[in-house]
Amino acid sequence: MSVQIYKGTIVTSETIDTLEVYEDAYLTVEDGVIRSIGDNIPDTYKDLPVTDYGRSLLIPAFSDLHIHAPQYHERGVGMDCLLFDWLNTYTFPEEARFADTDYARTAYAQVIRDLLRHGTLHANFFTTIHYDASDLFFRMLQKSGLYAFAGKLNMDMNSPDYLVEETEQAIADTERFVAEHPGDDHVKPILVPRFAPTCSEKLLKGLGRIAESYHVGVHTHLVESRAEAAWAAELFPQYGSDGAIYEGCGLLGHGPAIMAHVIFPTEVEERILEKYDVVSVHCPDATTNITAGIMPVRRMQKQGFRIAAGSDIGGGHHTGVYTQAARAVQLSKLKEFYEPENERLAFANAFYMATAEGGSVFGKAGRLAPGYRFDALVIDSMENEGKELTPLERLERFCYIGDDRNIRERFVDGRRIDPEEVYRKMLGC
Amino acid sequence: MSVQIYKGTIVTSETIDTLEVYEDAYLTVEDGVIRSIGDNIPDTYKDLPVTDYGRSLLIPAFSDLHIHAPQYHERGVGMDCLLFDWLNTYTFPEEARFADTDYARTAYAQVIRDLLRHGTLHANFFTTIHYDASDLFFRMLQKSGLYAFAGKLNMDMNSPDYLVEETEQAIADTERFVAEHPGDDHVKPILVPRFAPTCSEKLLKGLGRIAESYHVGVHTHLVESRAEAAWAAELFPQYGSDGAIYEGCGLLGHGPAIMAHVIFPTEVEERILEKYDVVSVHCPDATTNITAGIMPVRRMQKQGFRIAAGSDIGGGHHTGVYTQAARAVQLSKLKEFYEPENERLAFANAFYMATAEGGSVFGKAGRLAPGYRFDALVIDSMENEGKELTPLERLERFCYIGDDRNIRERFVDGRRIDPEEVYRKMLGC
Repeated sequence: MSVQIYKGTIVTSETIDTLEVYEDAYLTVEDGVIRSIGDNIPDTYKDLPVTDYGRSLLIPAFSDLHIHAPQYHERGVGMDCLLFDWLNTYTFPEEARFADTDYARTAYAQVIRDLLRHGTLHANFFTTIHYDASDLFFRMLQKSGLYAFAGKLNMDMNSPDYLVEETEQAIADTERFVAEHPGDDHVKPILVPRFAPTCSEKLLKGLGRIAESYHVGVHTHLVESRAEAAWAAELFPQYGSDGAIYEGCGLLGHGPAIMAHVIFPTEVEERILEKYDVVSVHCPDATTNITAGIMPVRRMQKQGFRIAAGSDIGGGHHTGVYTQAARAVQLSKLKEFYEPENERLAFANAFYMATAEGGSVFGKAGRLAPGYRFDALVIDSMENEGKELTPLERLERFCYIGDDRNIRERFVDGRRIDPEEVYRKMLGC
Repeated sequence: MSVQIYKGTIVTSETIDTLEVYEDAYLTVEDGVIRSIGDNIPDTYKDLPVTDYGRSLLIPAFSDLHIHAPQYHERGVGMDCLLFDWLNTYTFPEEARFADTDYARTAYAQVIRDLLRHGTLHANFFTTIHYDASDLFFRMLQKSGLYAFAGKLNMDMNSPDYLVEETEQAIADTERFVAEHPGDDHVKPILVPRFAPTCSEKLLKGLGRIAESYHVGVHTHLVESRAEAAWAAELFPQYGSDGAIYEGCGLLGHGPAIMAHVIFPTEVEERILEKYDVVSVHCPDATTNITAGIMPVRRMQKQGFRIAAGSDIGGGHHTGVYTQAARAVQLSKLKEFYEPENERLAFANAFYMATAEGGSVFGKAGRLAPGYRFDALVIDSMENEGKELTPLERLERFCYIGDDRNIRERFVDGRRIDPEEVYRKMLGC
């Protein structure tokens, strides 16, 4: 049995509204799982060495539940455009480059390395329509140490000529992808229809059959903006709303359902979120960049819906999902300003999204507590010389002004991960 | 005569709506002033060595027109509070520590170093009410290489017992400060009443007399939020609006007038902005953090008002004012979403605020053009391996995802500045 003992200030979500703080506490890990947290070391381990992190914080790893991995190289470009201009000018041409697996390898290696640098140790990815690049990406993830979901993207209509699938082939390729990539305890396949307006009913029903046969989940966009929702409803009058399309085509209920944005859920969407235990993903920077509006996060949290956080690279520009915890608080204040019936988020609510809720999709992860995997980060104290801060202030400060330089260590399953070493390994895939 | 020649891709504002790009161009500097930019080196200088920055960008230095220097150590803390809770819990106690000049020295040295690291080479500061710490800060600035305005803060009512001035003493101290700190071509004194609700009419009129006698400008907050503007109007019924208070007390027209936020200008404020050539300062993160609303930036730009950018440390949390250029575009999109009559900003409009408009307060600065000071930065190409970007995309990307690591060189008056060397010098003040 492998045992490690760490000392430091531990901060973790206890509930959606509360953070737990253990100052100068000991955390013991047995075979990658947390055994104890507290002022003392269990007697059995009294004689083992202790790694002391001083005033640094030990916190759960971050989970990013919505990332377009192939858009990493265009982050922060064309950000004053509106959505469809941005897609046509920047995004679709960039995704088309992933027909070239050599380009895909360097690009994907960079995004995986940088997610690790920024403390994202659990992630849920979009890829592109290309089988070979998606296959390569899946294999790279399996060597990365990340916990992840990934699949092959689908789009067979309302797409550029150079980036579109033929329907039957799309279904066949996707079935082959799922069959050939059963995954392991770290990396699992997921179905990824881009969004309803770029997928025919035939394609979506084909994906629904695959979901049922192979027990795989689905990752897509849901009511991303008023325009998108209206377009989806117009294209699919037989279903009438964005959420009902995915339900009607049989995509829900066979694995995790992870839906990005969910800014304007109707009663139909709310029923679907509840029935299928959907994880909605709040991506504050992205929904700002595409001028979509502001998700009613606090109201939905209080209704009991599951909401995680996402970078939405490249609609969002920041790699670290901790930045999105801060941005979620900021956006909630703007929503409260414009729509006063919406209460703003407390920092604890936002941190919960980026760790505990997101982590829950990847097993016992996202919190530091006995029985949870030791998927964790060690963060600098975040204090300026001459000024001490409380543990909660230090954590909040990291999310607001920290960056990858402030992350001293990354652990998955209790094992230290070095982003640069992973990067070199990825390039060899 | 000292001459330097640089080669690189030069990007600078041409007008408020347009950016100029010179690819692989030469820029010559004579005694700190730009002599030429173009495809060729002037004949006289043909034999001089050229510093080639490759694909890096040469851009104008950033100007931050609203910084509370003593709030640097509390950035990113208490960010889910509302304004008055945040002031009372975090800000006022922190400012009170500046009664201790040793604390002030370490704190001020850190903020100056970090501004330089982030490419802010022109800045306009709030301090605290303490004479000695403000005197020290002014002297530190004079040794820093920055172009700056700074003064002694004033507040004599509606303030905590431990952080308030007696009116006569406040006026006497401020006059002494201005008399003893005439400044130089880099650092100049300015009057800094905190905001109308914390200043008595007697104090403001005393400051008005100092402004007139010593020809100094004023830096304060103006219609920062609806609550603040209403409170000011209630406290000063004889003036009736926030802007009219400063005008009526004689603070305007004697030097630069720099007003932070200006979120809800009435006709009175608009008349005053025009009459006194006021520079309004947009601080996107701060106005979000304090739930103030969104400044009508594009409308005011089109009306011809001058708008610069500010970090508003510590109401804002980011040190680099380039982040605020990106954030200004984002906020303008949210404003357009909620108030569709407000057009969003193009990136060029936002970059102009953070460089050309802000720089104009500090002489011939804020643009790269013949006759302007070479106050400039060299920025990494911001490209991922395998993906080339245009110069404009590279600049936008820096503002969205860059940080101080991407700033390779900083020049003021044509001279290279090293933030770490300046830091050591500051600690010796």
